[in-house]
Amino acid sequence: MTWKEYHSKVEDHILILPVGSTEQHGPHLPLGVDSIISERYSHAIAQKVKAVIAPTINFGYKSQPASGGGPLFPGTVDLNGATLTSLIYDVLKEFIDDGWKKILIMSGHYENDAFLAEACDLLLRNQKEAYPKILLTNWWDNISQEILPVIFDEVEFKGWAMEHAAITETSMMMYFTPDLVHENLITDDAIENPPTYQRFPPSETLIPSSGCLYTGKSSTAEKGRLIVDDVVNNIISILKKEFTVSEVKYV
Amino acid sequence: MTWKEYHSKVEDHILILPVGSTEQHGPHLPLGVDSIISERYSHAIAQKVKAVIAPTINFGYKSQPASGGGPLFPGTVDLNGATLTSLIYDVLKEFIDDGWKKILIMSGHYENDAFLAEACDLLLRNQKEAYPKILLTNWWDNISQEILPVIFDEVEFKGWAMEHAAITETSMMMYFTPDLVHENLITDDAIENPPTYQRFPPSETLIPSSGCLYTGKSSTAEKGRLIVDDVVNNIISILKKEFTVSEVKYV
Amino acid sequence: MTWKEYHSKVEDHILILPVGSTEQHGPHLPLGVDSIISERYSHAIAQKVKAVIAPTINFGYKSQPASGGGPLFPGTVDLNGATLTSLIYDVLKEFIDDGWKKILIMSGHYENDAFLAEACDLLLRNQKEAYPKILLTNWWDNISQEILPVIFDEVEFKGWAMEHAAITETSMMMYFTPDLVHENLITDDAIENPPTYQRFPPSETLIPSSGCLYTGKSSTAEKGRLIVDDVVNNIISILKKEFTVSEVKYV
Amino acid sequence: MTWKEYHSKVEDHILILPVGSTEQHGPHLPLGVDSIISERYSHAIAQKVKAVIAPTINFGYKSQPASGGGPLFPGTVDLNGATLTSLIYDVLKEFIDDGWKKILIMSGHYENDAFLAEACDLLLRNQKEAYPKILLTNWWDNISQEILPVIFDEVEFKGWAMEHAAITETSMMMYFTPDLVHENLITDDAIENPPTYQRFPPSETLIPSSGCLYTGKSSTAEKGRLIVDDVVNNIISILKKEFTVSEVKYV
Amino acid sequence: MTWKEYHSKVEDHILILPVGSTEQHGPHLPLGVDSIISERYSHAIAQKVKAVIAPTINFGYKSQPASGGGPLFPGTVDLNGATLTSLIYDVLKEFIDDGWKKILIMSGHYENDAFLAEACDLLLRNQKEAYPKILLTNWWDNISQEILPVIFDEVEFKGWAMEHAAITETSMMMYFTPDLVHENLITDDAIENPPTYQRFPPSETLIPSSGCLYTGKSSTAEKGRLIVDDVVNNIISILKKEFTVSEVKYV
Amino acid sequence: MTWKEYHSKVEDHILILPVGSTEQHGPHLPLGVDSIISERYSHAIAQKVKAVIAPTINFGYKSQPASGGGPLFPGTVDLNGATLTSLIYDVLKEFIDDGWKKILIMSGHYENDAFLAEACDLLLRNQKEAYPKILLTNWWDNISQEILPVIFDEVEFKGWAMEHAAITETSMMMYFTPDLVHENLITDDAIENPPTYQRFPPSETLIPSSGCLYTGKSSTAEKGRLIVDDVVNNIISILKKEFTVSEVKYV
Repeated sequence: MTWKEYHSKVEDHILILPVGSTEQHGPHLPLGVDSIISERYSHAIAQKVKAVIAPTINFGYKSQPASGGGPLFPGTVDLNGATLTSLIYDVLKEFIDDGWKKILIMSGHYENDAFLAEACDLLLRNQKEAYPKILLTNWWDNISQEILPVIFDEVEFKGWAMEHAAITETSMMMYFTPDLVHENLITDDAIENPPTYQRFPPSETLIPSSGCLYTGKSSTAEKGRLIVDDVVNNIISILKKEFTVSEVKYV
Repeated sequence: MTWKEYHSKVEDHILILPVGSTEQHGPHLPLGVDSIISERYSHAIAQKVKAVIAPTINFGYKSQPASGGGPLFPGTVDLNGATLTSLIYDVLKEFIDDGWKKILIMSGHYENDAFLAEACDLLLRNQKEAYPKILLTNWWDNISQEILPVIFDEVEFKGWAMEHAAITETSMMMYFTPDLVHENLITDDAIENPPTYQRFPPSETLIPSSGCLYTGKSSTAEKGRLIVDDVVNNIISILKKEFTVSEVKYV
Repeated sequence: MTWKEYHSKVEDHILILPVGSTEQHGPHLPLGVDSIISERYSHAIAQKVKAVIAPTINFGYKSQPASGGGPLFPGTVDLNGATLTSLIYDVLKEFIDDGWKKILIMSGHYENDAFLAEACDLLLRNQKEAYPKILLTNWWDNISQEILPVIFDEVEFKGWAMEHAAITETSMMMYFTPDLVHENLITDDAIENPPTYQRFPPSETLIPSSGCLYTGKSSTAEKGRLIVDDVVNNIISILKKEFTVSEVKYV
Repeated sequence: MTWKEYHSKVEDHILILPVGSTEQHGPHLPLGVDSIISERYSHAIAQKVKAVIAPTINFGYKSQPASGGGPLFPGTVDLNGATLTSLIYDVLKEFIDDGWKKILIMSGHYENDAFLAEACDLLLRNQKEAYPKILLTNWWDNISQEILPVIFDEVEFKGWAMEHAAITETSMMMYFTPDLVHENLITDDAIENPPTYQRFPPSETLIPSSGCLYTGKSSTAEKGRLIVDDVVNNIISILKKEFTVSEVKYV
Repeated sequence: MTWKEYHSKVEDHILILPVGSTEQHGPHLPLGVDSIISERYSHAIAQKVKAVIAPTINFGYKSQPASGGGPLFPGTVDLNGATLTSLIYDVLKEFIDDGWKKILIMSGHYENDAFLAEACDLLLRNQKEAYPKILLTNWWDNISQEILPVIFDEVEFKGWAMEHAAITETSMMMYFTPDLVHENLITDDAIENPPTYQRFPPSETLIPSSGCLYTGKSSTAEKGRLIVDDVVNNIISILKKEFTVSEVKYV
Repeated sequence: MTWKEYHSKVEDHILILPVGSTEQHGPHLPLGVDSIISERYSHAIAQKVKAVIAPTINFGYKSQPASGGGPLFPGTVDLNGATLTSLIYDVLKEFIDDGWKKILIMSGHYENDAFLAEACDLLLRNQKEAYPKILLTNWWDNISQEILPVIFDEVEFKGWAMEHAAITETSMMMYFTPDLVHENLITDDAIENPPTYQRFPPSETLIPSSGCLYTGKSSTAEKGRLIVDDVVNNIISILKKEFTVSEVKYV
C-alpha cells in the first residue's frame, strides 16, 4: 500500500494493529504463533469491515511460566513492560496524528494486555471527546461460551492461561497455517497444579520440558475454523456497536 | 519496631509487603479497602509464621472499568505502571540489600499484578541462585474452590474481576473492620454484560453509578471469616513449600 | 471514607498528603518516625481547618549520613529520587483531576524536599492560573525561633539536619505515641564534627553506631506538645494566607 | 521454526535481525519498502551462510525531511529515539541470553542508525570479551564504488540520503517484489537544493509533494539484481572476517 | 590538554568537576556567576594540589524563589532534576572508566545539591571498595564560622539561601572578575520574610523585582579574597584527609 | 551579561547554542576541540547578525570509532543519547519560555546530530506555528564544494567522518587558537579502510594509536581562515533566509 492509498482510507476505514510475540509454543508449533494468529484474525476481520492492517508487532511482553512457559525457554524473546508500552504509544500516536479515528488492537499474546492498556491510557487519558477511540481485544475473551463444549469434547477446559500451545492455539494454527504445525510432535503434557502465586526467580521444574501447559491432542483444523468464525463474528459485533460501522462483502 | 529489632529478624523471618490501592469501592466501603485487606492478611499470616510486615503501599495501578470502576470515579487515585514498578523495585532492592532472603508480596488490588511482577522480574532476572526469593500473591487466587458455594449461596459467582466491592470484599471488611462498612448502603447493582474488550477513552455508562460491579447483598462477617481462614491456610502452605518455614504459634 | 464522602468535600476542603520515610531512628525510636509524625501533624491540622487526609506515603528519599544516618543502616528503606518524584507527581495529578484546588504536602523527612518540589514543579510549571495550588512544608521550618530556647534548655541547638532521632523528634514521639518510645534506650551519641561535604561511597565510621546524630536526652512529651502546638499554629497561618481558609472548631 | 529447532542452531549460526520502517516512499512504492528490503537481504545472506532470521522490526526512527520526506507525510509512522533504542536493546539482550554469539543487524532505513548503535553500545559497553559480537550495517554503505556508474547511468549520483524512493530503492523493489511497484507512477521529482541544516518545525514546501527526493526513472529490476548481489557479497565478506564463518551452499 | 597529557595524570591527580548554573543574579552580576565561581575555585584548588579540571557544567537545577529568585526571571535556564542527574552520572562514569580514583565536584549553585548527590549515589551505591571516591562540596558550607563577622560587618547574616547575588557572591565576583560586576547597580533589596514553605505555582511578588534576595551593599573584593582563601584552605584540608594528597607549590 | 541585558535582546536577537564534546583529537589537539570550534563559530556569526550566545554544552554524544576514535581513548567523555537529548530539550524549552523565537544550534561534533535533532523534534513536534523556530547545523555541512580543492591540495578528501583531528579541524584550530596546537606532534596516521559497518564491542586495532583518522599534515592557519569565512558566510545566508534577519556591522 502506498502512502496515497493509505491516506485515502483514513476517513472511513478502521485501523487494525496486530500485536503478537516471539515465544516458545511447544515442540509442534512455531515461535511466531501469537503474531501469526493476531495477523490472521486481522485479515479475517478486514474481510467483513473496511479496514487497513498495520505492520504486526512481532515482539511482546514477558512470557510468564504459568501462561506461556516463562523466560527460561530458548526462543522466548521478551520486551520489558516499559518498552512495549512506549512502542505501542508511539505507533498509536502516529496513527492518530495521521487522522485515524477508529483503531482496533488485536492481541494474540496473553501477557501483553496490561502494557497495551497502559499505552492506550497514557495516550488518551486526558481526552474528553469520544474519538479517536481505541479498542483493545484478543481472541480468547471473544470465544462464545456455547462453543467451548465442542472444542473441549475430549478433555476439560482449564482456563485460558493454560491454553498455551494447547487445543485452541493448535487448532487455529491447523486451520490458518497447517504447514507450520508438526502434528506428530503434539504432546499430552500439562502442568499438574497451576500455582496460585508467582515466584521470582522462576522455578525450572514447574513447566513440562516440552513447554506445553496443557494437552494439544484432540486439536483439529475444523475446531480452528469454528473458533475463528465465532471470534470474528463477536468482534464484528463489537466494531458495529463501538464504531458504528457496517458489514461489507469482499469477494 | 526499631532498626535493631528489625535487623535481628532478617535471618529467620519472612518479610511481607502489603500492596493495596486507593480506589472507589461503592457507597458502602471506604477507599482504602484494598490496602486494609492486604494489611490484615499480612497480620493474619504473621500470626502463624515468623514474619516482619513492611509499611503498606497505599496507592496502586490504574483501576480498570470492568474490574474496579475505572478512572472516572472520584477517589480512585492511580499510579502509572512505570511508577508502581519503580516504587516496588526500589523497595524490594533495599530489603534485599538489608539481607532479606524470603519476601512475600501480598496484593489486595486486582490491577496491580502485571506491574508488581515486572518489578520482581527486573530485580531478579539475572540472578542464578534460588535466594533471595520473592513470592507474589493475593487473596482471590488462594480461595479454595470448595468454599465458593458457601460464599455464593444466593447468587452466582461471575469471576474475580467482578468481585469489586461485592460479596467477597464486603464480607472480608465486615469481618476485619465492621465499623467501616455502611451495611445500609450495600447495593444490588451489577454490570449487565461485562465487555470482552477494553475501550479508550472509557465509557461513562458501562459501570453502575454506585461503582459496584456486582451485588454485595448476602455478604456476612461469617463469610469473611471463612474466606480469610481459607486464604491464610493456603498461603501458609505456599510459604512452607517455597520458604521451608514451619508454623509457629503466637498467643 | 467512601468515594461519595470524599467527593462531597472537594470544593471546600484542603487535601493534605503526609509524606514520611522508613529510616533508622536510633535504638529508641521506631523506623516509621517520619511517617508517624507527618501523619499526626496532618490530623492536628485537620482539627482546625476543613481537610481530608490522603493515605501516607511511607517511603521517602535516601537518608543521608549527616542528616539521617545514611544507607548503611538496616531498616533504612530508600527510594531513588526519580521514583519518589514520579510517585508524588502521579498522586498529585490524580487529586487535581478529582477537582482538588488546595493541597498541602506535609513532609516529615528532611531528605524528601528536593524531590517533592520537583514533582510539584513538573506538574504545575506551565500553569498560568493561581489554582490548583500546592504548598509543600514540614515541621522543622515552622518552629518559631522563640521556642528554641525552651526545647534546647540543656544542650545547644546544632541545626535541623542534626535533629535526627534527637530531642525534637523524640519529644514529639513522646507526645504523639509514647508507647513507641523506648526511653531507656535514649543515647547521648552525637556526630563530632559534621562534615562540610558529602562522600561517596559513604564512610562507615562517620555516624555513631546507634544511628543518633545528636543527643536525645532531655526530651519530654511536654516539649513535644510545645513544638506541635507551635508548628500547627504556624501552618494554620500559612493556610489562612495562601488558601484563604478560616479556622473551624471540631470537638 | 519451533523453539527446539531455534535452540539447536545457537552454537553455529548467525542471528540476523532485519530492521525497517513504515514510511512514505513516493506514489509508486509501498510504505513497507525499508522493512521488505532489509528482510529480503537477510534471506539472501542466509542463502550463503548458516543463519537464523529474527522477526522483522517494522517501525523505525523518525523520517527526516531531507532523507525520507519527514513527519508530515501520511503513512510515515515513526518511533521516538528512546523507544527504538529500548526495543532493540531488549531484543538483543534476549538473544544474547539465549546464547547467540554472532548477531547481524540489517537495517533498511537511513535514520535508524544512531539509535540502533546506541542500543548496541548500552548493551555491550562494559563487556571485555570479544563475543557476543554485534555487527550493524545496511545496504547503502555496502555498495561497491565500482557499480555506481552502472546504476547511475542516466543521472548523477547525489548521495545516499537522496536515494529515498529513487533509483536504488525502486530497482531493488522491482527485483525483490515487482508486484508491489507501480511503475507507471514513478516520478522525476527531486529536491532542488538539499539543505545544509535541519529546521524545526519542518518546512511544508521543502519536499516534492510526491514524497520522492530524487528521480526514480531509469530504475530496472536488473539494476536491482546487480545491487543486491554486490551488497550480499560485501556483507558475506564482512561476516567471514568478523565471525570467521565459511560460506555454505543451500540449494 | 591533549588526551595523552590527560591520560598521564590519571594516577596521581585529582579530577575536579565544576558545576554551576545559568541564573539571574540581580542587576549587577552576570547570569554565569555560579559557573564562574565554581570554575575559579577549581583553579584555586589546582594551585595547591595536583589536579585536572574538567569542562564546567554550565546549566544547573531549577532556581528556587527563596534561594535564587525562581523560574519566573528571564535568563534563569534550568534543567529538570532527572536531566542533571543523568548528565553528572554519565560524565562521572566516563571519568571512572578512564581510571580516575579521586574526584571532587565543586558546585556553585545552591539548588544543585540533591541531584548531584543522587548521581553519585546511583553510580557508586553498590561499590564495596573505598575507591574510586567522589567528594561533593561547595563554597558556602566551607566558610569558617570565624570569618562571618568580618563579611557581615554591616548587616546581619541571614543564612546561605539568602546569599543569592548578595554580599558573599558579589564580593567573590569583585575579587575573581571585577570587570563583570556593575557596582553601581548593586541594590539594597531583600525578601522581607522568607517563607517557611514552598508554593506551586510560585508567587510573582515574593521576590524583589531586582532578583536580589538580600543586600549586596558592603561587598568588597577584599572580602572576596578572604572568603576564597578560607574556603580553599578548608577544601584542601578535606582533600588531604579523604584523598591523602599532599600540598604542592606551583609558581 | 545580566538578566536585564539578556531580557532586552529577546525580541530582535538570535540565540545561538554552541554544542561541542570532550573527545580525543590526536596528540596535537586538545580534548575540547569541538567545543572551542563551535563556540568560536558562534562568536564569528554574532559579529554579523544580532545574536546572544548561550553557555557552551561541553559534553556530547558518544564518539564513534570511525568518526572520532571511539570510547576506548582516554579523555573521550561521552554522554548517553538520552542524556544529551534531555539536556538540549530542557535548555531549549527554557529559552523558548523566556521568549526566544529564533534559535540556532551550532554543533562542532559529528556524532551529536541525531540526538540534537531528537530534542528539537520532541520539543516542537506538536507546534503548528512557524515560530519559535530552531535551526540545527554544523561547520562541515556548510563548507562550499568550491573551496575543497584548496583545503585538500596535497591529499585526497575522504569524507567528513574521516576529518577527525585532521586537516580541517587542525587548520581551524591553528586559526582560532594557535597556542593550543602542538604542530610538531601532527601525524600522518590514517585508517586504512574505513569499515562499512559498526561493530560492538569496538575493535582495539581499527584506529591508529594516535587517535587521528586521517593526516593532519598540510594544515595551515590560512586554510582555517578560509574555511571559517566560507562557513560563516553560508550560515549567515541561512539565517537571512530562515529568520529574515539582516546583516549588521560590529566594529
